[in-house]
Amino acid sequence: MHAPSPTPSTGPRVLAREDAAGVATLTMDDPSSRNSLSEAMLAALSETLRAIAVDRSVRVVILTAVGPVYSSGHNLKEMTAHRADPDRGRAYYADIMGRCSQVMQQIVNLPQPVIAAVQGLATAAGCQLVASCDLAVASADARFCTPGVNFGLFCSTPMVALSRNVAPKHAMEMLLLGQQAPAEEAFRMGLVNRVVPAGEEVAAAHALAAIIASKSALTVKTGKSTFYRQIDMTLSQAYDHASAVMVENMLARDAAEGIEALLTKREPRWEDR
Amino acid sequence: MHAPSPTPSTGPRVLAREDAAGVATLTMDDPSSRNSLSEAMLAALSETLRAIAVDRSVRVVILTAVGPVYSSGHNLKEMTAHRADPDRGRAYYADIMGRCSQVMQQIVNLPQPVIAAVQGLATAAGCQLVASCDLAVASADARFCTPGVNFGLFCSTPMVALSRNVAPKHAMEMLLLGQQAPAEEAFRMGLVNRVVPAGEEVAAAHALAAIIASKSALTVKTGKSTFYRQIDMTLSQAYDHASAVMVENMLARDAAEGIEALLTKREPRWEDR
Amino acid sequence: MHAPSPTPSTGPRVLAREDAAGVATLTMDDPSSRNSLSEAMLAALSETLRAIAVDRSVRVVILTAVGPVYSSGHNLKEMTAHRADPDRGRAYYADIMGRCSQVMQQIVNLPQPVIAAVQGLATAAGCQLVASCDLAVASADARFCTPGVNFGLFCSTPMVALSRNVAPKHAMEMLLLGQQAPAEEAFRMGLVNRVVPAGEEVAAAHALAAIIASKSALTVKTGKSTFYRQIDMTLSQAYDHASAVMVENMLARDAAEGIEALLTKREPRWEDR
Repeated sequence: MHAPSPTPSTGPRVLAREDAAGVATLTMDDPSSRNSLSEAMLAALSETLRAIAVDRSVRVVILTAVGPVYSSGHNLKEMTAHRADPDRGRAYYADIMGRCSQVMQQIVNLPQPVIAAVQGLATAAGCQLVASCDLAVASADARFCTPGVNFGLFCSTPMVALSRNVAPKHAMEMLLLGQQAPAEEAFRMGLVNRVVPAGEEVAAAHALAAIIASKSALTVKTGKSTFYRQIDMTLSQAYDHASAVMVENMLARDAAEGIEALLTKREPRWEDR
Repeated sequence: MHAPSPTPSTGPRVLAREDAAGVATLTMDDPSSRNSLSEAMLAALSETLRAIAVDRSVRVVILTAVGPVYSSGHNLKEMTAHRADPDRGRAYYADIMGRCSQVMQQIVNLPQPVIAAVQGLATAAGCQLVASCDLAVASADARFCTPGVNFGLFCSTPMVALSRNVAPKHAMEMLLLGQQAPAEEAFRMGLVNRVVPAGEEVAAAHALAAIIASKSALTVKTGKSTFYRQIDMTLSQAYDHASAVMVENMLARDAAEGIEALLTKREPRWEDR
Repeated sequence: MHAPSPTPSTGPRVLAREDAAGVATLTMDDPSSRNSLSEAMLAALSETLRAIAVDRSVRVVILTAVGPVYSSGHNLKEMTAHRADPDRGRAYYADIMGRCSQVMQQIVNLPQPVIAAVQGLATAAGCQLVASCDLAVASADARFCTPGVNFGLFCSTPMVALSRNVAPKHAMEMLLLGQQAPAEEAFRMGLVNRVVPAGEEVAAAHALAAIIASKSALTVKTGKSTFYRQIDMTLSQAYDHASAVMVENMLARDAAEGIEALLTKREPRWEDR
């Protein structure tokens, strides 16, 4: 049932992928850097997401991690080393910020839903990862933080995702104070969908994933992409776009099958794509 | 006091209208189709809302229903029948989606506020109706659902309204899982304003309606239309627009009357429009 | 330590400013007009905020008030007096609305974060003040209201700030009913960050302010301005903008200092600006 995938990049493996029953579980596994979004981790995430985007066997993705930290965000040691560059690091910082923002948008643009299963501290761009996922399950021990303000580097890119998830006063509180929010507060703010007892977060994410994996992949893909496209539109533009999407969706095979199954009270059989 | 209105369309009456004390109560009454947004229901809603828009006797609208289902959304039987059309239904689906989106936007664009009084299951475009109303009162027994993903037809148009009401992770949970959210969860997400004991939802909606009906109709109309216009603007555009609205509002007779009444501690007498 | 500032405008002083430890505390002190946003108050706020914007000694602003009312919003007596103008007040209303919207946007555009410490009733443009601040602390006795609908002048400009703070159904409830929401409800809606026992709101705001004042001023300023700029953009535009900001932020002295301090586990020393 389980099919371990090849290491997505050279160097020590920082991201594990395990596929089972239509669910690809990605596990950030670089505890020595607190699962930082190092060059290696960003490359592994980008490469893996690019592969999954065209992998019809994957219906849902779970993004989890090992160790006390979910992800610590940018790798400050790598970044600091480039202060010695002739341009003081400018080109490197532009490149690494671009790559990180690209990974976040790969999650948003991925055809398959992505569920964060947060076992520990999700901080800076690590918190942004959670905000960028479609759904999130948190361990009761998880904490969420945008601490850049504490060390002179405001969490401006994490803010893009965070401020699209929670109310502005909540986002500002996290961003300006740089303090850790416990899982229950993240739940109250709408940053996570579920808080479960510590150690049950991956199982809880799998329970959600199994539900989504049982749906028509085409339908899920249609819905997810339409969600993020229409959210930046005015109301009437959004209705025009979504109505056109509904017409195409209605004409697709899976809607014919699904509606017939519903009306005749039988289980639908989805196309395998 | 009560003035039953004429049946708004031919065929069996699916929508009742009853006016009293400035409140038009619209009751979806087609339990055999689970109050689906059939051609007949969409026509009745559209026609009735068009009439109310220019009816100065109506200050507030309540949209409720009879039976265990508030509304089941699109009528899948009617839609499926058009798969036999020469174009496989494409023209019909485009037409029915356009009409449904128009009804939703008629609610938003109606001069008078619309209060949903949800007695049962509000699902698919039925949930969209609730999200499209200005206020919503739910029975403790009410449930909310965007189940299209379960039968291959993602709730893309309901999503337009839902995603403008609740946090993105909450919207995605409803849209991707297709499960029913109980009234208390809808309240927590901000989809409904009040949860009341079962059977009291219409009375609770009338209590809110009576408050609004006691206000200046011109003022309420000005405010509602400005709300939806400014929400899609940038902050500075929104302030420019709302400031211009405030100047005109201040110069209108009802503001002069209302402010004088406030300053002299007497009841205001609004213009009847 | 405390440096009382000069009275910002002629006439009786309606706004006190007291600076200490990088925190400027502005206290609306015109209880006879219920701290209305009179011409004098708007002028004092505008002038004071303009001075603070270029005052490097100020790291955070607290906006509070004395008396049972935080602020009652526009001064209706002043406004009503201009009905006798040849143009029935049109020019005056346009001017006062413009000035009020400018003050609200001065708060948003101020480099330093602004924390509302709400001790009493925040109503109409007084509620808008709270919504316009970056953070808000409320006394358990505080109440929030957009009551314009009660006297014929819909709270259209307060709505601009309110509707960007809370869910649309919550905003509409406040705007259409014109009733007072207690502090706990404002907390639930996301309009305030903290509710504290009555009388402790200023101390609680100072506790938050002290945390923010300990950060790098450049970093806080960068983050606040980026927050409000990116929030009106599409996701990809927002990422492009925030990524460019991060690069410049990384190259600034305070990030170098802050990250080095973090990596070497010592306290950072920020540039004094």
